[in-house]
Amino acid sequence: MVKRVREIFVFFFLAIFSKAIGIKPFWRTRWAADRSNECLTWQLAVEANNVRGWRTVPAHCLHHIETYMTGGQYEQDINYIVEQIQNYVTQVTVDEDGMDAWILDVDDTCISNIFYYKRKKYGCEPYDPWGFKAWVMKAECPAIPAVLGLFQKLVDSGFKVFLITGRDEETLAAATIDNLHTQGFIGYERVVFRTEPFKGKSAVVYKSAIRKQLMEQGYRIWGNVGDQWTDLQGEYLGNRTFKLPNPMYCVP
Amino acid sequence: MVKRVREIFVFFFLAIFSKAIGIKPFWRTRWAADRSNECLTWQLAVEANNVRGWRTVPAHCLHHIETYMTGGQYEQDINYIVEQIQNYVTQVTVDEDGMDAWILDVDDTCISNIFYYKRKKYGCEPYDPWGFKAWVMKAECPAIPAVLGLFQKLVDSGFKVFLITGRDEETLAAATIDNLHTQGFIGYERVVFRTEPFKGKSAVVYKSAIRKQLMEQGYRIWGNVGDQWTDLQGEYLGNRTFKLPNPMYCVP
Repeated sequence: MVKRVREIFVFFFLAIFSKAIGIKPFWRTRWAADRSNECLTWQLAVEANNVRGWRTVPAHCLHHIETYMTGGQYEQDINYIVEQIQNYVTQVTVDEDGMDAWILDVDDTCISNIFYYKRKKYGCEPYDPWGFKAWVMKAECPAIPAVLGLFQKLVDSGFKVFLITGRDEETLAAATIDNLHTQGFIGYERVVFRTEPFKGKSAVVYKSAIRKQLMEQGYRIWGNVGDQWTDLQGEYLGNRTFKLPNPMYCVP
Repeated sequence: MVKRVREIFVFFFLAIFSKAIGIKPFWRTRWAADRSNECLTWQLAVEANNVRGWRTVPAHCLHHIETYMTGGQYEQDINYIVEQIQNYVTQVTVDEDGMDAWILDVDDTCISNIFYYKRKKYGCEPYDPWGFKAWVMKAECPAIPAVLGLFQKLVDSGFKVFLITGRDEETLAAATIDNLHTQGFIGYERVVFRTEPFKGKSAVVYKSAIRKQLMEQGYRIWGNVGDQWTDLQGEYLGNRTFKLPNPMYCVP
């Protein structure tokens, strides 16, 4: 009864308040503010590329993102997108000339950094370049199962698979290749690391330049998969791009 | 107690089953399949442009989409994206030459079709061109409040605002302009409708061609806002694009 009275009070307060500030929630069939979730709003805006260059997950979204990443929804979202990719792959006829290419990002596309980000409050803490480097050197990123399956299908179908990563070649190539092999990523055409000329350049500039080289070498890029919008923007994007979810960090 | 026993049984069944098919849900800290929501997975995939050319909302997602559209989350999502747009707008210096332009889509960007789609099971029913035409002729689409606020700010700031719609000029221009004016969209530079040469062409081709004309006339397109990815793809996109949510229908 007390709850009901409180609800009625809140309803009238908000009805008056919303009128006062000119908001007309005309399409609401019922008052349901408690159903709305502002962390989900933030996450959707990130995944639709409406929020760019963000530094950390909003502090109050820690629980939401932790639940998303570890409770099954993230895994389900990835699996569903990979299903869409597989449907698309079956529509492509691979030529015998060996020039049909596919691009995959590495971090949180092929292999996961979730164990590292668990210690960084799932992205609520700011980016820690030294901490991340130390993590990468351990070569303990697990494969993302659905993407490993996709990778194997692509290789088996005759695509030349290029893994393009922002990781530094000089310091991180050995550990990264070791990590990829241990996790089953075997049979790719090349892993492309960030080299000296691209240090300090944005991911869009660096990855566009690499894709341009591939196009100039005669490759036809059929697909391009990454967890960052900066993997999927710029030039020479390929015939289709697919955005995997990642609410933990943003690569500018 | 019965529930607990059932949970344990389900847990073991799924543990064995997931092992049998080779899935390794390594990052799950607990079993939480009941937290995952496949309609949310579909919606996220749509908003991130991973699912394209879809015809209807999956039938089992009716309740999810109805709740999303009418329960407050849709409104909150729109408001949040418009906040991001407003932040961006304040960074643009409008020149005195009057050539700073902004593009808005009309349907479910400026004005809402939610009352129509309510009768079509929020998109679970297939597109009905005659029904939609009859609805448009009534000129009863309400403004989307946050976008109306954005529109007014853009006009007041000196942007030339172009409303580019896929609606047919010959049959729907009068009702559309009437509807826009009644809802407060006054002060735009031009409403561009689909004319004969673009009939049967995709939205990407049609809207790219219109944007190209604007660029050739010397306009600088600073922003481009739409509820469809096809509003925001193709050529001459503008300096920044923003995707408003729309889980009810897809314009190819």
